[in-house]
Parts: sequence; C-alpha cells; structure tokens
Amino acid sequence: MNLSIIRYILGTVLCFEGLFLLLPVLVSAFYQEGEGIIYLAVAAAAFLAGFAIRMKKPRSRVFFAKEGFAAVTFSWVLMSFVGALPMFLCGDYASYIDALFDTVSGFTTTGASVLSTIEPLAKSTLFWRCFTHWVGGMGVLVFLMAVLPLSDSSDMYLMRAESPGPSVGKLVPRVKQTAVILYKIYFGFTVLQIILLLLAGLPFYDACALTFSTVGTGGFAIVDSSIASYNLAVKIIIIVFMLICSINFNTYYLLLVRKTRLALVDNEELRVFLAAVFISAVLITLQIKSSFGSIGKAFEEALFQVATLVSSTGFATADYNLWPEFSKTVLVLLMLMGACAGSTGGGFKVSRLMILCKAFHNELMTMTHPRSVQKVHMNGQRVEDKTVKTALGYLVAYVLILLTSVLLISLDNFDMTSNFTAVIATLNNIGPGLNVVGPAGNFGGYHLFSKIVLMLDMLVGRLELFPLLVLFAPGMWNLKGPVPRYEHKRFEEYEE
Amino acid sequence: MNLSIIRYILGTVLCFEGLFLLLPVLVSAFYQEGEGIIYLAVAAAAFLAGFAIRMKKPRSRVFFAKEGFAAVTFSWVLMSFVGALPMFLCGDYASYIDALFDTVSGFTTTGASVLSTIEPLAKSTLFWRCFTHWVGGMGVLVFLMAVLPLSDSSDMYLMRAESPGPSVGKLVPRVKQTAVILYKIYFGFTVLQIILLLLAGLPFYDACALTFSTVGTGGFAIVDSSIASYNLAVKIIIIVFMLICSINFNTYYLLLVRKTRLALVDNEELRVFLAAVFISAVLITLQIKSSFGSIGKAFEEALFQVATLVSSTGFATADYNLWPEFSKTVLVLLMLMGACAGSTGGGFKVSRLMILCKAFHNELMTMTHPRSVQKVHMNGQRVEDKTVKTALGYLVAYVLILLTSVLLISLDNFDMTSNFTAVIATLNNIGPGLNVVGPAGNFGGYHLFSKIVLMLDMLVGRLELFPLLVLFAPGMWNLKGPVPRYEHKRFEEYEE
Repeated sequence: MNLSIIRYILGTVLCFEGLFLLLPVLVSAFYQEGEGIIYLAVAAAAFLAGFAIRMKKPRSRVFFAKEGFAAVTFSWVLMSFVGALPMFLCGDYASYIDALFDTVSGFTTTGASVLSTIEPLAKSTLFWRCFTHWVGGMGVLVFLMAVLPLSDSSDMYLMRAESPGPSVGKLVPRVKQTAVILYKIYFGFTVLQIILLLLAGLPFYDACALTFSTVGTGGFAIVDSSIASYNLAVKIIIIVFMLICSINFNTYYLLLVRKTRLALVDNEELRVFLAAVFISAVLITLQIKSSFGSIGKAFEEALFQVATLVSSTGFATADYNLWPEFSKTVLVLLMLMGACAGSTGGGFKVSRLMILCKAFHNELMTMTHPRSVQKVHMNGQRVEDKTVKTALGYLVAYVLILLTSVLLISLDNFDMTSNFTAVIATLNNIGPGLNVVGPAGNFGGYHLFSKIVLMLDMLVGRLELFPLLVLFAPGMWNLKGPVPRYEHKRFEEYEE
Repeated sequence: MNLSIIRYILGTVLCFEGLFLLLPVLVSAFYQEGEGIIYLAVAAAAFLAGFAIRMKKPRSRVFFAKEGFAAVTFSWVLMSFVGALPMFLCGDYASYIDALFDTVSGFTTTGASVLSTIEPLAKSTLFWRCFTHWVGGMGVLVFLMAVLPLSDSSDMYLMRAESPGPSVGKLVPRVKQTAVILYKIYFGFTVLQIILLLLAGLPFYDACALTFSTVGTGGFAIVDSSIASYNLAVKIIIIVFMLICSINFNTYYLLLVRKTRLALVDNEELRVFLAAVFISAVLITLQIKSSFGSIGKAFEEALFQVATLVSSTGFATADYNLWPEFSKTVLVLLMLMGACAGSTGGGFKVSRLMILCKAFHNELMTMTHPRSVQKVHMNGQRVEDKTVKTALGYLVAYVLILLTSVLLISLDNFDMTSNFTAVIATLNNIGPGLNVVGPAGNFGGYHLFSKIVLMLDMLVGRLELFPLLVLFAPGMWNLKGPVPRYEHKRFEEYEE
C-alpha cells in the first residue's frame, strides 16, 4: 500500500473543498448573511490544511486497485467531515453528527435529512447542501482527474473505484480525457437546466440550487414543500432532468460523436429503464386517478414520484405514503432498481439487474441443456464472465448489508416498513422512504447509533459497496515490500 | 422429453396418495365421524385412477434432468389437487381454492392456513392436514424411490429435483439405498417423538398429529392455540424435534456409521445453524424478559419462536407480532435463512447462505490480490464452482420471485410488512409472518389472486425454485427426436 500517494490525493481533495466552500461565502455576501464568515473560515482552513498535506510530493507513484479503493473511500469520508463543519458551526443542527448526516447525505446525493424543517436555515447553508449534491453526483475524484495531471494508471483505478455501474467504459483511450468529457456533459446539463428554470420564472438562486440537486440526483430542496409549490413548467423541467441524469452519460457522448446507433438502438439498458419508468407511471396513474381531479394531474404526480425515486433524487410533490399499497410497492421496487450505470443516479443499477436476470436465464438453460455454453450479452456485446461474477457478488453483498442494517436500526423500535425503506433510501442514495421516513417525515427520529449505520449505508451505496468493504479485507493493509509481480500484470490488463 | 415415464410416475404417486388417504379413514372410523366415507371415496378413486394410469408401462426408460424436474413438479401439483378434494367435500372450506391452499400448505410443509379457526374441523381432516406435512417433509418422490424399483438414473434426477439444499450428497453409491436410509431415519424420529409425547401425557391421536407436523417441519396444529396450551414437557420435546429435523439428515447417517468426525467436527453448517439459534434466542430473551415473569420463561418463549421459525415449522406459543421491533427483525432474518440443507426444513438454507458469503469473501480477496485464485470450501471440502454458480443463480431467482410476489399481492392493499412476510412465510414454507399473517392471524383475508400467487410461492419454495421454473425454459418441451449425445455424457458425470 502506497500511503504517500493517498496522502497526496487527500490533500488535493481538501484544497478543492476549500475552493468549493467559497461558493456559499459568495451567497452569504450577496444576501448579507452572517454565516458567510464561518464558511470563509472553514474554506481557508481546509485549503491551507490541504496545501500543507500535499506539499511533500509522494515518495512513489505506484498506484493499483488497493490505492484506488483507499483514496476514494478516505476522500469521501474526509470531505464529509469537513463539509459538515460550517453547517454545524452555524448552529442549525443539534449536534455535529446531525450536521454530518446531512453532509454525507449531500455528497452521496442521497438527500435524506434529520431536520423536520429547513426553512430556518441560512441561504448559504441551503446552497451548500445543494452544491454538495453537484460535487458528489459525478464524483469528486473524477473531477480531480479531469483537472489534475495524474498518471493514467491512477486515473483508471480511481475511476473504477468511484464510478457507478457493473463495468467502467472508457470513452476515449485516456482516462483523463474521459473524465473531462464526462464533466463537460455534466456541466452542459447544469447550465441548460439553470437557463430553463430561469425561463420558467425562478430566481437565479433557486434555479442554481434546484439544478445542483437535480443533475446530481440528490434531492435537497430549499423550501419545506420541496417541489410541490412550484409551477408546472418547473416540475416538468425537473422531471426531464432527473431522467436525463439517470441515463448512462456514455449515451450523450456517443450522441455527440454521432454514433447514434450505439447510443440509442443498441442501448438495451436505456430501453428497459424508460419502459420501467413509463409502465410504472401508468400503473400508478390508474390506481390513484380517483384521488386527483383529472387523469392528467394523476399522471403528473405519478410520473414525478416515479422519476424522483427511480433516479434516486428524492424530491417530493406528493405524500405517496398515503397512496394505495400497490402503488407504494411499485415505487419501492423502482427504488431498489435505481438508475442506469454510469449516470449520477444511485441504486442497484438497471444494467446490473439485467446482467443478473440474463445470467439466471442462462442458468435455467443450462439445466435443460447441460452441455450448451451460454454467455451473457448486453447492448449487443459479450459481457465478460468476470463482470457477471462481480455483479453476483454485488447482489450478495447488497442483500447482506441491507438486512444487517435493517436489523441494527430496528433497535430504535420503528416499524419494519420504515426501517426497511430507510435502509433502501440511504443505501440507494434516494432520500425518502415510507412511513416515518416518508416524504412528509425525516430521519431525525433515529438515534445516534442508527444515524451512523445509515450514514455508512449512504457511503457504501454511493461507492458501490466494494471500495469501502475491501478496506476490511485481509491483506489490504500490507504496507511493506514491493508490489507483487502479478499486480503489475493485472495493471497491464486494464490498459488493453 | 419422455412423457410416458412421467405419466407412469404420476400414476404411481396417485396410487400412493390413495393409500395415504386411508389413514384419515381409520381416524374417522375410530372417532365415528361421518367424514370417513368422503375420505374413503376419494382414496378409492385416487387409487383406481392411479392404477389405470400406470397400467401401460412407459415406452422408454430414458430419464434425464428434464424428466426429473417435470415429474417432481407435476407430482406435487397433482397430490395437492387430489388431497384438497376430501377437505373441500367435507364442507369446512368456503371454496375448493381455500381447501387447495391449505393442502398445498400441508404438502409443502408450510403450515399457513386460510381458516381463522380449525377447531370445527373433523378429527380426520385435522389428521390429514398434519399427515400431509409428514409426506411432504422428506419428499414424496424420495419415498417412491425408497419403495419402488426405478432405475438408478431416474432416482438420481428425481432426488436432485426434490431434495433441499445446494447440492445432493449421496450417502451410499446407490440412490435408492440413500432414499431408504433417509426414510428410515425419518421414521425413527417420528416413532421416537410419538413415544416421548405419549410419555409427556398426550393422547395417541394428539401425539401422532403433532409429531407429523413437527418432524415434517410443517406447523399445522389441532387446536387454535397451536402449542401454547400444552405442558412444558411437550413444548421442550417439540423444540428439540423441530431443531433435530432442521439439521442435515446426512449428519445422522454419519453418526449411525460412526463417522463422528465428519458428522460433527467438520460440520460447519451445523455449527453456524446452532450458533444462530442460540444467539438469536439469547438476544430476544434480553429484549423481552421484562414482559415475562422470569428470565427462564422469557428464554422458553424466545427459544420456541426461534426454533419454530428457523426450522420453518410455524407452530406458535406466543404472539411475537407484539414483541419489540428488534426481536421481530431477528425472527424475520431467521425466517429468511431457514434450516440446514438436506433436512425437512425450508428456507434459503444455511449452507447456501454460507457458500454465498464465502464466495463474496473470495471476491473481495480477488479485488486486493487480483491474481490469486480463491476457492470456496465447506465442511472441509472444496465446493465445486458449479455449485457456487447455482447458489448465486438461486439468490437471483429468490430475490426476483420474492419481489414479484410482494408486488402482486400488494393489490389486496394490506400493509407492506404483512405482504413481505406473507411471501417469506410461504416461499420459505414457514407458515406465519407478521401483522395480518402473524401467529394470531391467517391468510384468509387475501383474495383469490393473491392466494394463487402464495400457493405458487409455497410450491416453488419447497421444490427450491428451479424444477418449477425450468418448465418455462425454452427447449424444455422439445418432445421429438432422440436425446442429444451430450445429455448422455452429462448423465455419466452424475454417476461418477
């Protein structure tokens, strides 16, 4: 384990967080809020600390999977600890842990909160909360490699550890270029949505904050009613951008380079995702239409909740907790499925689910035709056995973490549906669940221990389980000696 | 597909069911109940129909995996349809479907009922319900091959399709002998428990009925209070036999042939199972002790519920639905885990869970040491990659079936915890769940459609998903042509 390069990366992350923290300082300067000085102090401290930490160049440039996992996990934890500081110091949170919960929730784009009302918060704090979604959405280390000259090998391992989905597709030969392209697309969507929201009549501040929460598929709002009080145009824009950001960003790159066939026709995941969204919205509309004036209004409400939950955003326009059980179950299943791989959305991921279904179908085929060899195909291409195996391992880990978390937080004695959906909502980085943690509720009722469990769920969910889990794997912390030969070989493989 | 041998097996199953149905006839003769004539009529009809069907010898002896899956699935469906007839004709059930629900529940050793009270039922019907548990516990086709001269190849495929657990271990080279040994052990436990219950003061009828429900890990009782009204000795006997029958029957065979080391020392599954039972019982005791007079009474209640749910029996002595959430969650997790492989108990199976955990651990190891080759070991032996792959496929199928079932029955608008535990209770062949289907409730509130879904869950759970699912696999119903060469080869493999 090359600790010096991890230190170097952590220092860099801290510097960038210091720069990011200047944004709420600007906001408070504009609105003349006293909180600005707190944000400025933390920003300066973070930047200076980061600068000091990264002053000494790393002793070695050796960078493998281990270093990637460790750098990514520690970066996210560090960012959260520092990001929570100004929020706590502003005095809006009852404890540092509460502020930390909302910050982890922000960076992991979960959007779950311990607060029952957010309207007393300073505008700078509300802005910072939304901005953490934007930073976490595409990934802070992807950002880092987009702007910093790191080696291509470290880029690859960082990317693998931070990017969502069963396999990482490089768009172009160099990982750094891939990161730049991803951030350009992300930035493009951000600017576009801000302009559209301004056109729909929102003030600049609201447009920016809501856009950060939408494109990062986070879900923090700036008023207690979330999105319910905005006009229809705003709601439609948000629905569209939630769905856009739930689709693999490769799709947009392929469209940009005019590979339309690959982007749309061969894109099985996209078809399944859109079909799931549409069918769910229609089924729910049919069940809830009597509660709303018109079928149009019912469809609007159904589609919004479907889009917000499947994209793992977590905005709300209706208390779906009061809807019939079938509609709620459809929503919970969408929460479990989640968005497409390579998007800013969370969850189990559509493509991972498809790979598992196909692998299972092949298993059935093998039972009736024992000697036939079945391979999984996705988007017109062979899926490597390794990817299938990892997806299966992911399911095992996912189920174990889910059940263990439900058991641990059940000590707070809330009902099982609340506990179960609270874990899904955090592990899949969605935000709201059902009952106690429904769209009208919050996570403040859980005790300290449960909050820590749910924070870990958010982190482990955003980093897709493995980076955080391997930190506890035997042999991970073998610090001495040169890197074994086979790991070099392994590295070559990634570069093929 | 060799349909003629499937027909022959189905006819044989029908004949045996006719013979089994003579038992309730004896009971009604003894207690002078009018229902006896109905049971006699159905018994005679079943026997004659079965005899007629199997008169014509099968045209071919060809028997492979396909035939095994089809024969087992159709046998279980046929048995249920016929077994429900007398129960319906006696007039205790509102509809044939309701009677069928309880019969499927009986044969699959689930023990879930649509009735709110069973005390108005005739003694012969109560006895038949309990006896279906005994028949289903070890498997009707295992019984068939124990008493009938079939070819060793068909025995193997029938055994693979009907036996629970990730892999079938033949105790002795010939499958038929294995089946005989298993039934001898099963019979031995049955006789032993009846004697012990008689010594504890139960009448012969009660001792027999409760023993059938216990050793088959079924859960049908003969009074509404289930086991709560019996004395402590009876409760302890039932706890012990529920646990005994949740342990792999290979263990007892190995003990009989004095391979104590293999049976106990190398038996990882047994250790994990007993540890789970003990730790769960202690944790629950600590949480519920204030509600009971003494810690001893609390432990008795905790251990009984733990044993009844982990063994997938489903007897009740307390309404655990009223217990604190943590205790309920522990019980639900035990329900999900289930008993050991190769026992009469249901559920996901301890060894399958262990294989998945170990496979996942290896996956983590591979992430930090990419070139090292990790293999799964269980009970001191290498687990074949094929077995690991099948266990992973099983998890995928299990989760998909679980979620789909919850969605389908949510149309009845019961709460999510009820729906979720109703599906677990049927899919894992346990019986009671929580809330509406808790130990004080029943499945009668669900509508026809949900009852059918839950019946399918019971069957698919008892047959461990694949036999029923492969019936829908493409190529399964290819009836023409000779068996392809590779299937012959495959068959040789099993015989190694």
